[in-house]
Amino acid sequence: MTNKKFEVNPWEVKGDIDYGKLIKEFGIEPLKELPEIFENNVLFRRKTIFAHRDIGRVLMAIKNKKKFVMMTGLMPSGNFHLGHMLVVQQMIFYQKLGAKIYIAVADLEAYNARGSTLKEMRKIAIEQYIKNYIALGLSSKNCEIYFQSDRSKDSVKANAYYRLASNFSRYSTFNEFKAVYGDISPGKMNASLLQAADMFHAQLPEFEGSVPIIVPVGTDQDPHLRLARGMSKKFKEHKFIQLSSTYHLFLPGLGGGKMSSSDPNSHIAMTDSEKEVANKINKYAFSGGRATLEEHKKKGGNPDIDVSFQYLKMFFEENDNKLKQIEEDYRNGNLTTGELKKYTIDKINVFLKKHQEKRAKITKNDVENFLYK
Amino acid sequence: MTNKKFEVNPWEVKGDIDYGKLIKEFGIEPLKELPEIFENNVLFRRKTIFAHRDIGRVLMAIKNKKKFVMMTGLMPSGNFHLGHMLVVQQMIFYQKLGAKIYIAVADLEAYNARGSTLKEMRKIAIEQYIKNYIALGLSSKNCEIYFQSDRSKDSVKANAYYRLASNFSRYSTFNEFKAVYGDISPGKMNASLLQAADMFHAQLPEFEGSVPIIVPVGTDQDPHLRLARGMSKKFKEHKFIQLSSTYHLFLPGLGGGKMSSSDPNSHIAMTDSEKEVANKINKYAFSGGRATLEEHKKKGGNPDIDVSFQYLKMFFEENDNKLKQIEEDYRNGNLTTGELKKYTIDKINVFLKKHQEKRAKITKNDVENFLYK
Repeated sequence: MTNKKFEVNPWEVKGDIDYGKLIKEFGIEPLKELPEIFENNVLFRRKTIFAHRDIGRVLMAIKNKKKFVMMTGLMPSGNFHLGHMLVVQQMIFYQKLGAKIYIAVADLEAYNARGSTLKEMRKIAIEQYIKNYIALGLSSKNCEIYFQSDRSKDSVKANAYYRLASNFSRYSTFNEFKAVYGDISPGKMNASLLQAADMFHAQLPEFEGSVPIIVPVGTDQDPHLRLARGMSKKFKEHKFIQLSSTYHLFLPGLGGGKMSSSDPNSHIAMTDSEKEVANKINKYAFSGGRATLEEHKKKGGNPDIDVSFQYLKMFFEENDNKLKQIEEDYRNGNLTTGELKKYTIDKINVFLKKHQEKRAKITKNDVENFLYK
Repeated sequence: MTNKKFEVNPWEVKGDIDYGKLIKEFGIEPLKELPEIFENNVLFRRKTIFAHRDIGRVLMAIKNKKKFVMMTGLMPSGNFHLGHMLVVQQMIFYQKLGAKIYIAVADLEAYNARGSTLKEMRKIAIEQYIKNYIALGLSSKNCEIYFQSDRSKDSVKANAYYRLASNFSRYSTFNEFKAVYGDISPGKMNASLLQAADMFHAQLPEFEGSVPIIVPVGTDQDPHLRLARGMSKKFKEHKFIQLSSTYHLFLPGLGGGKMSSSDPNSHIAMTDSEKEVANKINKYAFSGGRATLEEHKKKGGNPDIDVSFQYLKMFFEENDNKLKQIEEDYRNGNLTTGELKKYTIDKINVFLKKHQEKRAKITKNDVENFLYK
């Protein structure tokens, strides 16, 4: 892989990602010894979710069947693609374990930091995100999805949420924002305060009260968490339980790097046709195979950098033995790049066909069940 | 008067105030040719309210009996004193002219910028401010008083207000905040965004719709207005009618400078006893009289710098002929400082006695009528 300048902040990810360095720098810990129910999930078992901070109190809540919250957000921009599934699979996982799911649509953040209109954001959030969440299996029971610009139909909740975002500003300095974000504008700062409220407000008496909250993120999102943790620790009026968080790898884009909403040749969208999937994987998916078939047969390929293999590992081949077989065959040259790609294309298309059928049946009413609680 | 360094910003006022310079620097205009109803009001007639920006559209609304809003705020800190009456008299004046009155309790601003607790703020706002407003004659009809931390019982309104404060952040830069405030922290910036929402949100469709808004302020508050105007002009989703504003002199503190809540020897509180008033005026009120009675009789005093005379002029002697007689007598030495002080003390005590009686009768219910609409 190329050796680009290493750079990671919540607004963009450039170059290659040195996960070891991120763990060391951000003080998070590798995930070890999880309960069986976690090991049954392919994302945990295969270390796609590879690190955490303070997950203990969430494991305890699960063990003791106590209330806990999983909090996440969505930035309504561009197409929903396979990369977005990483968080959705975790929503569904924790929801089945009894978590209440809070999902913030970061429309004010998009408005302030990206110049979008709230109306556009709303449409994208529903069509691209929420409908796919539902099709993937998220239940409206024990789940609320809200817009930052429109927190609640209950004014007591709405006032409490925005009050918290404002109160956090007392417990931060410009230097803290600058240290975390590099460049900071009033719009970004405001978005960051709202995001801290998103992460913590479930613990307010107007919402769930004192419950553990788990926030699953990509490692590039950790600066947001650290800033919010810092402010919450200085908070005087309310004693917050510190956030628990887990960290996952990015799903690689077709050409490597992070899968991107804005570049269709980097992602497979949930709306892609069978033909598009085949074309994209064949044309763009970075391969760990050799330059010639002869060389491949002789020296073998490298599944670790092969994008198709990573898709199988992260999502589409749940059978460990089968995956292991593919890995071995590819490594020793028995499986060609063309065969691996064809296998992956078929797996993705079987999945997408079912998904698209489910998504087509979702009504306006189904969406409304998630909103405005 | 002493020649202290001239400095004015919304957080503090130091030194002597050069109103001519403020008018020139801030681009506001002297008030001229007002309708009779304004001239009947002692604050306008005697130029205590001396300048404006864009008052025309409010005068037009009054003339055509169209809806308009008067917006103001209160910072809940310390004792309510005579100086606070300047804005309250204007609330009552505009309310009688048909304005809807919006009053923001700047409790989040106090929390962020001054480190107060919201609970303390609430108590001070009610006991020190709202009860005095009611006793002074503010009606709950066509008036809503709200806390920044708790905008409305109506969630549609609450969401819209906080959304506006957040949206404003997109249309500002740190340099603009710095140019206006000098030093700026995240807490102050957040407070400033809320204040901009306070000033403009009445125009949103969720509130009154497109109506002129008049904001009466002391000149030191103009930077807030200019910042809010600037952000509102760049706003894309809503076309705001620009704020109208008027500017009033400060009521001088007993020793000169601005009357201060935190220094009891600078102010006369609404709760002061007859004895306290007499004592404070006699002991602390800066006098324009001569060093000796003999010199005073011979050379005369200076009412322009005499604090007692200013109190009579601003509030307590509404009869122009009587005030003119006092001024002449003082200037030519026929009226002594002792006599002027005694006259002022009596006037204030007659006023405070009635006021305190009215205030004592105010119930919790009376206060509630103003809140949470």
